[in-house]
Amino acid sequence: MLRLSTRASLTARPFFQGSFRTMATASIPEKQKGIIFYENGGELKYEDIPVPKPKPNELLINVKYSGVCHTDLHAWKGDWPLPTKLPLVGGHEGAGVVVAMGENVKGWKIGDLAGIKWLNGSCLSCEYCEKSNESNCPHADLSGYTHDGSFQQYATADYVQAARIPEGTDLAEVSPILCAGVTVYKALKSANLKAGDWVAISGAAGGLGSLAVQYAKAMGYRVLGIDGGAEKGELVKKLGGEVFIDFTKHKNLVEAVQEATNGGPHGVINVSVSEAAMTASTQFVRPTGTVVLVGLPAGAVIKSEVFSHVVKSINIKGSYVGNRADTREAVDFFVRGMVKSPIHVVGLSELPKVYELMEKGKILGRYVVDTAK
Amino acid sequence: MLRLSTRASLTARPFFQGSFRTMATASIPEKQKGIIFYENGGELKYEDIPVPKPKPNELLINVKYSGVCHTDLHAWKGDWPLPTKLPLVGGHEGAGVVVAMGENVKGWKIGDLAGIKWLNGSCLSCEYCEKSNESNCPHADLSGYTHDGSFQQYATADYVQAARIPEGTDLAEVSPILCAGVTVYKALKSANLKAGDWVAISGAAGGLGSLAVQYAKAMGYRVLGIDGGAEKGELVKKLGGEVFIDFTKHKNLVEAVQEATNGGPHGVINVSVSEAAMTASTQFVRPTGTVVLVGLPAGAVIKSEVFSHVVKSINIKGSYVGNRADTREAVDFFVRGMVKSPIHVVGLSELPKVYELMEKGKILGRYVVDTAK
Amino acid sequence: MLRLSTRASLTARPFFQGSFRTMATASIPEKQKGIIFYENGGELKYEDIPVPKPKPNELLINVKYSGVCHTDLHAWKGDWPLPTKLPLVGGHEGAGVVVAMGENVKGWKIGDLAGIKWLNGSCLSCEYCEKSNESNCPHADLSGYTHDGSFQQYATADYVQAARIPEGTDLAEVSPILCAGVTVYKALKSANLKAGDWVAISGAAGGLGSLAVQYAKAMGYRVLGIDGGAEKGELVKKLGGEVFIDFTKHKNLVEAVQEATNGGPHGVINVSVSEAAMTASTQFVRPTGTVVLVGLPAGAVIKSEVFSHVVKSINIKGSYVGNRADTREAVDFFVRGMVKSPIHVVGLSELPKVYELMEKGKILGRYVVDTAK
Amino acid sequence: MLRLSTRASLTARPFFQGSFRTMATASIPEKQKGIIFYENGGELKYEDIPVPKPKPNELLINVKYSGVCHTDLHAWKGDWPLPTKLPLVGGHEGAGVVVAMGENVKGWKIGDLAGIKWLNGSCLSCEYCEKSNESNCPHADLSGYTHDGSFQQYATADYVQAARIPEGTDLAEVSPILCAGVTVYKALKSANLKAGDWVAISGAAGGLGSLAVQYAKAMGYRVLGIDGGAEKGELVKKLGGEVFIDFTKHKNLVEAVQEATNGGPHGVINVSVSEAAMTASTQFVRPTGTVVLVGLPAGAVIKSEVFSHVVKSINIKGSYVGNRADTREAVDFFVRGMVKSPIHVVGLSELPKVYELMEKGKILGRYVVDTAK
Repeated sequence: MLRLSTRASLTARPFFQGSFRTMATASIPEKQKGIIFYENGGELKYEDIPVPKPKPNELLINVKYSGVCHTDLHAWKGDWPLPTKLPLVGGHEGAGVVVAMGENVKGWKIGDLAGIKWLNGSCLSCEYCEKSNESNCPHADLSGYTHDGSFQQYATADYVQAARIPEGTDLAEVSPILCAGVTVYKALKSANLKAGDWVAISGAAGGLGSLAVQYAKAMGYRVLGIDGGAEKGELVKKLGGEVFIDFTKHKNLVEAVQEATNGGPHGVINVSVSEAAMTASTQFVRPTGTVVLVGLPAGAVIKSEVFSHVVKSINIKGSYVGNRADTREAVDFFVRGMVKSPIHVVGLSELPKVYELMEKGKILGRYVVDTAK
Repeated sequence: MLRLSTRASLTARPFFQGSFRTMATASIPEKQKGIIFYENGGELKYEDIPVPKPKPNELLINVKYSGVCHTDLHAWKGDWPLPTKLPLVGGHEGAGVVVAMGENVKGWKIGDLAGIKWLNGSCLSCEYCEKSNESNCPHADLSGYTHDGSFQQYATADYVQAARIPEGTDLAEVSPILCAGVTVYKALKSANLKAGDWVAISGAAGGLGSLAVQYAKAMGYRVLGIDGGAEKGELVKKLGGEVFIDFTKHKNLVEAVQEATNGGPHGVINVSVSEAAMTASTQFVRPTGTVVLVGLPAGAVIKSEVFSHVVKSINIKGSYVGNRADTREAVDFFVRGMVKSPIHVVGLSELPKVYELMEKGKILGRYVVDTAK
Repeated sequence: MLRLSTRASLTARPFFQGSFRTMATASIPEKQKGIIFYENGGELKYEDIPVPKPKPNELLINVKYSGVCHTDLHAWKGDWPLPTKLPLVGGHEGAGVVVAMGENVKGWKIGDLAGIKWLNGSCLSCEYCEKSNESNCPHADLSGYTHDGSFQQYATADYVQAARIPEGTDLAEVSPILCAGVTVYKALKSANLKAGDWVAISGAAGGLGSLAVQYAKAMGYRVLGIDGGAEKGELVKKLGGEVFIDFTKHKNLVEAVQEATNGGPHGVINVSVSEAAMTASTQFVRPTGTVVLVGLPAGAVIKSEVFSHVVKSINIKGSYVGNRADTREAVDFFVRGMVKSPIHVVGLSELPKVYELMEKGKILGRYVVDTAK
Repeated sequence: MLRLSTRASLTARPFFQGSFRTMATASIPEKQKGIIFYENGGELKYEDIPVPKPKPNELLINVKYSGVCHTDLHAWKGDWPLPTKLPLVGGHEGAGVVVAMGENVKGWKIGDLAGIKWLNGSCLSCEYCEKSNESNCPHADLSGYTHDGSFQQYATADYVQAARIPEGTDLAEVSPILCAGVTVYKALKSANLKAGDWVAISGAAGGLGSLAVQYAKAMGYRVLGIDGGAEKGELVKKLGGEVFIDFTKHKNLVEAVQEATNGGPHGVINVSVSEAAMTASTQFVRPTGTVVLVGLPAGAVIKSEVFSHVVKSINIKGSYVGNRADTREAVDFFVRGMVKSPIHVVGLSELPKVYELMEKGKILGRYVVDTAK
C-alpha cells in the first residue's frame, strides 16, 4: 500500500474540508493504485487513480484484500444484459478498514473492519428493499459493475450495505466470504432444507462448491458432492461431504444420485454452470424438493419436463447473492471457524494474469489480491 | 340407476356376509352401468359391470354425478409415462352417497355424502404421506387410472382420502370441485401469495381457469386473466377478474402484463398448457414471484433463462392436485357460495361423445355425467 | 395553516441555506402551531413553536391531518417503561405533503404525499432492521415519543420510514390507517391465517376493532366479532363480520365462540386490552391456532394454562405496529376502497379535549385533528 | 420373554384364526408379564396378563425395552384433566419386533423393528390429521393412557403411527428416543430457528434436556444450557453446549443469559417445568424469538407481561410430542450417531421402584425397563 506522509496528505486533500469525518491519525492519499479498464474487454491497467470521496451515506474503506470472482470477468467482458459503468474498477469482495465516512452514516466508527459486497447500495424503500430482498432492488448499485469496486486501495460503500467484519478477522481469508460465501449460504437457505436433509452440490470441488459443502455441513445437512475426478472427491470428503459422485464414472448420474440419497436429495445447489448439469438436477431432485440456480452463465437456459415437474411437485428457484442478514450470518460461520476459505494471495498488479487463468477455466480455489502489491 | 329388489340383492351378494356394514334400508345391486375400456384408446363401452366390493378400509359410494376431466382423456389414450389399470373405468370427480363400508372405516356413516378424488388412497406412512404430501406418495392409488373410478354407479374409495361433502350440497355442481377445484385452489396456495397480491391466470376463461379466477378472488388476490377473445374477457371480468389481457391483441404480452400489474404479477397459475405461454410466464412474473405449473401436457418442457431466473430470484413450482386439507377447504369455498361451478350435465351413456369434443378442444366449461342416464 | 409571505420566509430562514431542497414555489414559515407539553401529564399547550429543520436523511412534511391514538395518551402520561422526549409534540398518524428534504433523500420529490408513522426512523443495520423487523430496532426513533410528532403543522420524518401515500388520497381519512390500520393489518398477518379461516376480533366495534374486521374480511377470513351491546353487533355485521358474540349476553364466552366457529377461531386479535379477555382468548382459540397481542395496556399480564397450551399447541404472539411493507399494503387496501376509516375531524387546538374523552373511555371511532384549525 | 411351545400356543389362541398374519416360526403366548394398575394411584402390579389381539389396522409388537417417562407417573396418579383407561398398562416408549398384524396393515412385515409412541393411533381424517398435526387429533388414542402401553411384553399399535426403527438399531437405547427424543426434537423445530441461532435449554442436564442439547447441536444451533450445579454444567458442555448458566450462581438470570447470547437466545426450550423458569424465559428471549413450552406440569400457568411481549414481538408456543415425520427424523439422528441416549436398564418388575424415585425427583437420566426381567 502506498502511504503518503501525513503532511503531504493534509495539504493535498481539499475534499476533506467540510462534512465528513476522517480517521484522526491516518493519512488518506489523493492518489492510489488500482486496476481500471476503459472499455469492455479492453486493457486492464494497473494505474494511479484518484481516491474516491464518500457521499453523506458512504464509508471510505481502505481495502486490504479483495477476492476475485467469475462475475468480475463478465463485468470486464460486458457479456451480460446489464451494461457496466465505464471506465470501471472491478471487484466486489473487498475487506478493509473504515478510514472516513459521510455525515449521515450511523453505527460505524473509524477503524472498524468493513467489507465491500456486490450490492454496494440499494434504494431502501422499494417493495424489494422493504422486505429485505434488497438484491432485487431495481436501483441496486453494484460494486465493480455500476460502482467502482475493490480492485483499488480505497473504495466507497453505502454504510447500510457494507459488511460488518468482527475485529481480529483475517482480512485476506474473509474476502471471498463476502460474495462467494454469502452466495452459496443464501442458496442453501433458499433450498428450504432442515437439518438431516440431503443436499447435492453440483460442482462441489470448485471455489463456490467447496464453500457450499462446508456451509451445508455446518447447517446440519447431509452433503452429496458431484464433480469430476478422484482428487476432487477427496477434497469434497475432507470438507465434510458424506458421499461423492464422480460424474465421469457414472453412466446414469440421475440414478446414482437417487440411489445414494435414498430417493434423491431434498435440495440441489447448482454452482456448476453447465446446462446439462442443471437439467439433470431437475431429474434427480427428490419429490417436493428444490433445485437452486445460483450461477450466472451468459445465455444459458434451464429446461424441465412439465409432467414430472408437476407430479413430483418440485421447485426451481433462483438465488441471487444475499441480503445484509445473510452476509452477517455467512461471516459469522466463518469467524466461528466452521468454514475455511482456501485462498491464493497475489498482488493487485497481477490481476490481469488471474483473469487470463479464469478465462481458460484453470482456476482452482479462490484468488485474492493484496492491494499493497 | 338400476335398482334390483332387496330380495334379489340379498340372495345374490355373497360378499355382504361378514365384515362390512351396509345401508340398512337400501339395496345394493350386483350389477350396474358403467363406461369401461379394455385397452388404451379402445372402445368406450357403456356396459353392465359388477358392483365392486369395499375392502376393510374402503367406502362403497353410490356415485350420482361425475365431472369429466382432461386427465380422463390421457388415461384412456395411455399417453402418460405411468401405465393405467386395464380394463379401466375412468373418472375421478365423483359425488355420491356412502352405501356400505369396510370394517376398519372410522368417522363415516351410511348416508354421508362423499366424493371420489384423483387420489383414491395412499400408503399413509411414507415420507410424503407423513407430511401431508400424499399426492406425491409413490404408492398412490389413482381413481380412474389405477383404481376403477367414478364413471360407474358404485365405486370404492379409501375412507381416509374420500372427500367429505356437507349435507345438502348439490352433487352435480360439487363434482368438478373435487379435482378441477382442488387443483387450482392448491396451485394458488402453492404460489405463496398474500391478500392484495396480483395473480395472473393464464388460460383464465377455460374450465380450470374460470374456477381459478373465483378462488383467487375469494382469497383476496387481485386477478389478471389471460386468454384469447373479447367474450372470454367478459367472462373473466364477470367472475371477478380485475384486468383481462387478450393475448390475440398484444404484440408484447410480457410488457402488457407487467404494465397492468405495476411490475408483474406476484404469482402465475398456468392452467393453459401451451409451452409458449408457460415460458412467457417466467418472463413477466414479478421478481421474487412464483410461476406455478399445474397442467400435465404430455411431453411438454418449460424453459427459463438462467440469468434472469437468478437475478429476479423467481420460482417455478409444480403443483399436483391437492391433499385432504386442500380438498376440505376447496369444497368449503364452494359450499359457502364463493365459487360457482358452471356445468353441462349429460347422461353417463353419452360420455364417449364428451371425450370426442374434448379431444377436438371444443369443450367450454365442465361436463358432468349423470350416472342414472 | 399559517403562511408567511415568500419574502418574509426567505429572509427569516437561515437554515435553508445550504444542503437541502425545498418546495420551489411554497413558503415554509419559521413558526407554526402545535400542541406541546413540557412534562409528562403536564398542560397540553397550543402554541407557536419553531418549524423543525430536516436532517440530510429527512423529509419535512406539512402535516394536514393527524389521527389521535391511545398511545398518545400513554406518551403524555408517561406511564410506559420507556421515557419520552421532553418537551414533546405528540402524534404519529400524520398525513401531509413533502415541502423540503435533506440532501441524502432518495426516491421522494417535493409535493409527494407522505405519512408520519409511529416508527419515525430506525438504524437500518441492526439484526432487526436487516430482516425487516425494524419496529424491533433498539435504536428506533418514535414519532410523538422520542421525536416530535404530527400534532404540529410541520414535522420531520426519515425518508426510509415515511409512508408513501398515493396522489389523490383523502389525507384526513388515511391518517388513522398509518398507525391503527397498519397495526391491525400486521396483527392479522401475524396470526398466520389463510383465506377461509376463522378469526376472532376481541373488541371488534372499537377504533382498532372496526378496522380489523374490515381488513380481515378483505383478506378472505371469516370474522367473528366480540364486543358488548346490540348496537356494536350491528356495526360489526355491517363492516363484514359473519358472527357477533355479545359478551354481556353469554355466560360461557369460551363455549359460545367455539360453537360458532366449529371448534374455535384459527386466530384471535386482541384489540381489547382487558386481561380477562386476553386470557379467555387462550382458552377459545382453536388447537394449533394463534392468539395475537397487539394493545399495550400498562402493567397488564397475560396468563395461559401450560397443560392446554401444550396439548393444543397454541401460540401467543406479540405484534408491534408494522414495517414498511405492512404500511404500503395497509394503505393499498384503504386506497382500493376495501377498508373505510370512519373519523371525527376536529381542530388541532381541540386536542386536549380529545385526550380528556379518551381518558374517560368515551371515544367511539377515531378522532382526527386538522392542523389548520 | 416367556415363550410357550408352538404347540401350546396353537391350541390356546383361538383369536389367531382368521384375519391376521402372524410370524411364521415364532410362538405368541396367551399370557405375558406386565405392570398393571386398577385405579389411579393404586398398586402397580407385576402380573400375568393376556396378550392383546391386534385389530385389522394394528401391529402386535413384542416389546423388548421401554423407556420410563414422567408422563407415566401422571397417568398412574391421574392428575391430568384427561381421564385414563382403567385398568391400565402404562408405557409409551416401547421398542420391539413385529410378530403379528391385522389384515389391513400395509407396508410392514413380520420381523420389522417397531416402536410404540405416545400417539398410538389417530383418526386420520380430522382437520389436524389432514395437516400432519395428528398429535392434536381429538380422537387420539394414547399408549399407556387410553390404550394399554409398553410396560408389557406384547402390545398393539396402529400401523400408521407405529415408529419405524431401522434394522440393527439398539432397542434399549432407542426406546427413550420414541418419546423424549421426538418431543425435544419437535420442540426445537417449533422454535423456528436456523443454523447459527442461539437456543437456550432450560433444564439442560435432565433426561429431556440432555437429549435437547444434542439435537440442537446436530441441527447447527448454538446451545446455552441452564441448570443448577457444576456437575450439570460439565455434562452440558460435554454434550455440545457452548455456554452453561448455573442458575444457582446468578442473581440475575435474565441478564446473564442475554449477555452470554449477545441479546438473548432466538429460541428457548423449557424442559424444566418450573413456573418461575418459564416466566424468566419470556424475559430473556431475544426480540422476535420463540419460547417453547413442552412439559406438562399439572396445574401450571405461564405469565407474560403484555407490554414487552408486544414490543419485543415474542411468541410463546406449545409443542406437543411430534408427528410421524418428526419421529422418523428424530430416530434418524440417533441412528446416525449424532445423539446418544444414556440409559439405566432395569427389569420390568422393578418399575414400581422407578416410579418411586421419579416421584421423589431423584431420577438422573432415563430409566429403561427390560420386559424379559
